[in-house]
Amino acid sequence: MRSLKLGMVGGGPGAGIGPAHRRAARLDGHFELVAGAFSRDASRNRAMAEELGIAPDRVYADFATMASAEARRPDGIECVSIVTPNDTHSAASLAFIERGIDVICDKPMATSLADAIAVEKAAATRGVVFALTHNYSAYPMVAQARHLVRAGELGTIRIVAVEYAMGGRYRLVEAEGDAKMAWRVDSAIAGPSTVLGDIGTHAHHLLRTITGLEIESLSAELTTIVSGRTADDNALVNLRFRGGARGHMWACMAAPGNGHGLRIRVFGDQASLHWDHDKPDELAVRAENSPYVTQRRGEPYLGDEAKHASRTKAGNPAGYFEAFANVYADAAEAIRARREGRPCNPLARSFGTAHDGVLGMRFIEAAVDSHRRGGAWVDAMVDALVQRC
Amino acid sequence: MRSLKLGMVGGGPGAGIGPAHRRAARLDGHFELVAGAFSRDASRNRAMAEELGIAPDRVYADFATMASAEARRPDGIECVSIVTPNDTHSAASLAFIERGIDVICDKPMATSLADAIAVEKAAATRGVVFALTHNYSAYPMVAQARHLVRAGELGTIRIVAVEYAMGGRYRLVEAEGDAKMAWRVDSAIAGPSTVLGDIGTHAHHLLRTITGLEIESLSAELTTIVSGRTADDNALVNLRFRGGARGHMWACMAAPGNGHGLRIRVFGDQASLHWDHDKPDELAVRAENSPYVTQRRGEPYLGDEAKHASRTKAGNPAGYFEAFANVYADAAEAIRARREGRPCNPLARSFGTAHDGVLGMRFIEAAVDSHRRGGAWVDAMVDALVQRC
Amino acid sequence: MRSLKLGMVGGGPGAGIGPAHRRAARLDGHFELVAGAFSRDASRNRAMAEELGIAPDRVYADFATMASAEARRPDGIECVSIVTPNDTHSAASLAFIERGIDVICDKPMATSLADAIAVEKAAATRGVVFALTHNYSAYPMVAQARHLVRAGELGTIRIVAVEYAMGGRYRLVEAEGDAKMAWRVDSAIAGPSTVLGDIGTHAHHLLRTITGLEIESLSAELTTIVSGRTADDNALVNLRFRGGARGHMWACMAAPGNGHGLRIRVFGDQASLHWDHDKPDELAVRAENSPYVTQRRGEPYLGDEAKHASRTKAGNPAGYFEAFANVYADAAEAIRARREGRPCNPLARSFGTAHDGVLGMRFIEAAVDSHRRGGAWVDAMVDALVQRC
Amino acid sequence: MRSLKLGMVGGGPGAGIGPAHRRAARLDGHFELVAGAFSRDASRNRAMAEELGIAPDRVYADFATMASAEARRPDGIECVSIVTPNDTHSAASLAFIERGIDVICDKPMATSLADAIAVEKAAATRGVVFALTHNYSAYPMVAQARHLVRAGELGTIRIVAVEYAMGGRYRLVEAEGDAKMAWRVDSAIAGPSTVLGDIGTHAHHLLRTITGLEIESLSAELTTIVSGRTADDNALVNLRFRGGARGHMWACMAAPGNGHGLRIRVFGDQASLHWDHDKPDELAVRAENSPYVTQRRGEPYLGDEAKHASRTKAGNPAGYFEAFANVYADAAEAIRARREGRPCNPLARSFGTAHDGVLGMRFIEAAVDSHRRGGAWVDAMVDALVQRC
Repeated sequence: MRSLKLGMVGGGPGAGIGPAHRRAARLDGHFELVAGAFSRDASRNRAMAEELGIAPDRVYADFATMASAEARRPDGIECVSIVTPNDTHSAASLAFIERGIDVICDKPMATSLADAIAVEKAAATRGVVFALTHNYSAYPMVAQARHLVRAGELGTIRIVAVEYAMGGRYRLVEAEGDAKMAWRVDSAIAGPSTVLGDIGTHAHHLLRTITGLEIESLSAELTTIVSGRTADDNALVNLRFRGGARGHMWACMAAPGNGHGLRIRVFGDQASLHWDHDKPDELAVRAENSPYVTQRRGEPYLGDEAKHASRTKAGNPAGYFEAFANVYADAAEAIRARREGRPCNPLARSFGTAHDGVLGMRFIEAAVDSHRRGGAWVDAMVDALVQRC
Repeated sequence: MRSLKLGMVGGGPGAGIGPAHRRAARLDGHFELVAGAFSRDASRNRAMAEELGIAPDRVYADFATMASAEARRPDGIECVSIVTPNDTHSAASLAFIERGIDVICDKPMATSLADAIAVEKAAATRGVVFALTHNYSAYPMVAQARHLVRAGELGTIRIVAVEYAMGGRYRLVEAEGDAKMAWRVDSAIAGPSTVLGDIGTHAHHLLRTITGLEIESLSAELTTIVSGRTADDNALVNLRFRGGARGHMWACMAAPGNGHGLRIRVFGDQASLHWDHDKPDELAVRAENSPYVTQRRGEPYLGDEAKHASRTKAGNPAGYFEAFANVYADAAEAIRARREGRPCNPLARSFGTAHDGVLGMRFIEAAVDSHRRGGAWVDAMVDALVQRC
Repeated sequence: MRSLKLGMVGGGPGAGIGPAHRRAARLDGHFELVAGAFSRDASRNRAMAEELGIAPDRVYADFATMASAEARRPDGIECVSIVTPNDTHSAASLAFIERGIDVICDKPMATSLADAIAVEKAAATRGVVFALTHNYSAYPMVAQARHLVRAGELGTIRIVAVEYAMGGRYRLVEAEGDAKMAWRVDSAIAGPSTVLGDIGTHAHHLLRTITGLEIESLSAELTTIVSGRTADDNALVNLRFRGGARGHMWACMAAPGNGHGLRIRVFGDQASLHWDHDKPDELAVRAENSPYVTQRRGEPYLGDEAKHASRTKAGNPAGYFEAFANVYADAAEAIRARREGRPCNPLARSFGTAHDGVLGMRFIEAAVDSHRRGGAWVDAMVDALVQRC
Repeated sequence: MRSLKLGMVGGGPGAGIGPAHRRAARLDGHFELVAGAFSRDASRNRAMAEELGIAPDRVYADFATMASAEARRPDGIECVSIVTPNDTHSAASLAFIERGIDVICDKPMATSLADAIAVEKAAATRGVVFALTHNYSAYPMVAQARHLVRAGELGTIRIVAVEYAMGGRYRLVEAEGDAKMAWRVDSAIAGPSTVLGDIGTHAHHLLRTITGLEIESLSAELTTIVSGRTADDNALVNLRFRGGARGHMWACMAAPGNGHGLRIRVFGDQASLHWDHDKPDELAVRAENSPYVTQRRGEPYLGDEAKHASRTKAGNPAGYFEAFANVYADAAEAIRARREGRPCNPLARSFGTAHDGVLGMRFIEAAVDSHRRGGAWVDAMVDALVQRC
């Protein structure tokens, strides 16, 4: 099976998420990285290209040059990974979409709802694949959680509790030389809410992925708990879902000692499920008056989606890069299906869609609005329906 | 050391909490149960007295008769346990307080703030001991958590997340013959909020015990998630503390598969602590960039309060009855100190005070008020300071 | 229900296990402690009696005096707890058995197999209750484990792995003033193997309780791993059971950081069960290709024995004293049944029998023999069958 | 950085471990797979080559043909992965070693000690890299465990308990079509002990990696617990180490419900460490009278080796493929260093050496010998010293 020719925008020396994208792209052998605009700094750009074995004539000063040059090459890239800070996501996506190059883009999709919608529309018009790397939703047991919810194992969902409360930015690290935080506290780059754009959107996508619920309205309090910080770093968001279920999200960048801190619990009228990113291979399913049950990745009793997303048997722990690689593997399938004019494998859905990205921006803007209005409940609905693959 | 002569109001056959109080009173040998008004039903009252070996002339039809009769006896009870449904707590407490009999009372202290204040005032005027059985705050590692907070191990507290989300009432059990739930959904007996009166006050007391923080204002949403229920069973409460810290409480009676579901996490600007009632002998203390630490009951490195509250070495699990017995042991010390005219051991503080009970009712009434006002932030301060032992 | 009149031998000030026996006796209200020979030191004996509220005329200089004096009193004790160091167990037991007084005795039953057999015979001849406090076998989920094995849930048992590896004596604490260890390293008091007598017998009883397997032969290595110690403190014992199953026991007093360290796993040809004393309310039951299952104390799906051994609902942790109190509660039932001439409740079996004690001594002597013969496999069978209650 | 040109022997369609080697080789981009002899079946061989994008002229019928052909090509492979069943390991290794091609070989190194020694000697003579894929020893926290032992954090080691007890072969799966088990129960292919060759050697390498201890003598019992099986599937091995420490290994292929079941605990005279493959990112370090400590992968306090072996920050779980990829990454460094005539990075040591492989075979043969002699203690020393990288 031929590898897909991949380009990359961002991910220069010292970048945060670039290496994860590259490992994810490599793990299953679906992609070959052949072009890049890794850094705006020319020497850093060249250095990274050399480390990666990219031919010098395919190293570009910026995404626009790269998009037009690669589109002209007979052996040009078929797809691109966009792993820059947030403010470039939508513009870079548009540049490649317009040239029919499939896009894999880090989250959030944009820094405004309007920009996100523009990308969604362009991708739909051009018919290209747009895959948003909500890698935390791509674990096999998240797929299993979705499966159980849809199979009715929990009954009707009543309550969802999701949290993504990490500790890494518990000090004013942006003043101590943490370059990855420095741009995150600049709203011109990060968007209207730092904590929601950076991690809240992951929690939002995770809860939507598992429950399929649509947020009807929300009440949010966005606060800055680290003194001196110029952006929010803590969010408490109460949620009302269409149909009456209630939920709560806590997103925080400054909870020292809470580890990575991504966790979701879904309570139905029959049973509940519990997934913790610290133990991603496990999914607890619990009902009253019954023994506690833990389902495990790699087991024969799982649903097809969880099996599709797994590479090895239970007991050999799967981790972060494998979930990330699921996004790439499923994107590869979607890209190949499009290019081969055949239907995509319906199990290949571990990436976020353009519409997921739009909903993420809608969520952020509604939360910011609620906060500005003293925590008032504000509408958070989006008319269009979610479409995937 | 002579046992204290104890009476009991409530706790008849089939009662929920009565047997726990009796085991707690027995474990350390501080009390001898010699009188009771166990049930309003005469035959059930007699049956329980007989099972407990109570002399027939000390079995009473009601608390008022018992209070006056026992006060007249030269060998009358020195203290009383009140373990009835909520609506009797304050009246019964007053009956014994007025006669100089020390009171151990189940929570909540009353069904209204006004009644709670009346009890606090009467106890202060008469100088008797009033011990509220917030047994979940009486675990040794809760005492250690308080110790660490006060010693500054967490730095300045920024966020508190507490939840008491149990599953037992996930169906309409009150319609299926669950007598313990039947009275809890009757606001005339249970008070203005079922979920907060029954379990929210425990979470409230636990967070106050550990953090020492005072709630300045709160925003609450009280909902009924079990169809057909006539009382609330789910509460989401956002908290602002004096000094700026934020918090969140989730109290729920209908979260199937969540076990007992009592858990607290406190995040400071240096470190955090994590206590889960499922593993009460452990207290996690965690900072960024440092190994995770778990302190354990019974160890030499603990503070004096945790040592005081422990009966055996680490490794031999301590549980529910021992925490409950800590309330009784410390109440015994307070009662003896009062009666002997000597200072109470300052470590004997595992019971709630009358003022804790007042604050609990203040919390409930503020939450009900906020909910009625659509989740508006409402003031929740109480002027008086907390005093104990 | 009238309390049983109880005496105690041993358990003076500073004693290790005495307070646990007293709390266990008190928790459910079945016993009233009315007499004692707590210490050979007269003033310490009196001090403990006073603290416990024992009448001065029922405080005795030694067990022999106590046995004869109490047997003559019309209100004499009906049963006695023997909580002395090992070398007194059999002699004291015989003194009370001979007078028809029921005995609750700490383990090991004796310091030699011959002495143990003498006690078993005497108890059988006199028809009294002899209850050995193997308190670690008295947890509800141990009863459930036995239930599942007998119900065939594991299939045929193939492998048993049991360990009791604690850390408390990892230094030469007996040279640092640890009086409880000082007598344990004196073989004249502790018996032929310190590590097996002190903790190995608990592991042995636990595995027999759960599996019902009989040890056919064993190969043991007993070593002293703490330099300067005059007794063994580490035992590795391989086991062959009647019927072909294999097993392994590790008993150690010097495994620093291993906590209490009591744990058992039983593997059948269908499934396995896993019980860890650190989480006594849980029992894991696991099969290949099936979700992992955890059964919990206090739940409706448990067998009758586990329900009988539980006092409160799941979620409120039960611990060490409750298991210990199960031994006392079931002993109370056995004693009452004998005295009332009625059958004992068949569920009241959480204490060790005299025959269990004999098997424990057989196990120790076989292990010592194997060790002396360089780890040779030696026979460990006992002809008589186990009988209880 | 140029990729190393890699060949592969074995790993055809349906093979067990081949895909893991390929993912491990890809993850960090150090290798490019360009040649192979994947299967003795020509059509399966071609099919795999096509799936992997291997040029048809570099697909070979067998390892001998491949070794000679590739050695002649100017662009021939620089290294080879040998992932066949055990009986080919040494012969294939020799074929490539003799031509100066560096070897990465799955364990066990051979099916006899003599063959293993021949490979070790050949690799030493030719000066090539020989990397044995003991992937379970390549987790970052295993490196940290070794670091702590060497830094003296445990004091002097007294006891090592290691187990690798999995459940997958708890039924006679070789009779049900499990091809991967079919060859494992054929001693001509698998070697003298199935359970030790397949998983016991991993446990053996893990304990040696962490502790650095040398086995002086051992006493083993090898049994077949699954009825009808023609090979051993359970091993109990007691260990005496040079210097006096004791240990125990349990290896089992038929422990249903025990998961992957690889776990090690090391007890010194000061503290202990506990590592469980189920939670590979954690390492517990525990001393008496001190809080329990858990170190985590990705943290700044770790030693250099653990940092070298980690790709992402703590909290993003690392798993099986990353440990496997550590073996490949470090082999790449060793191969490059050799080819560039420079010293190897001393941290690049996560693969087993040829001498490790020799010691593994020595261990198996000693255990088989002890078992045949009724569990007698037999010598297990090897004179030569371990050398790496």
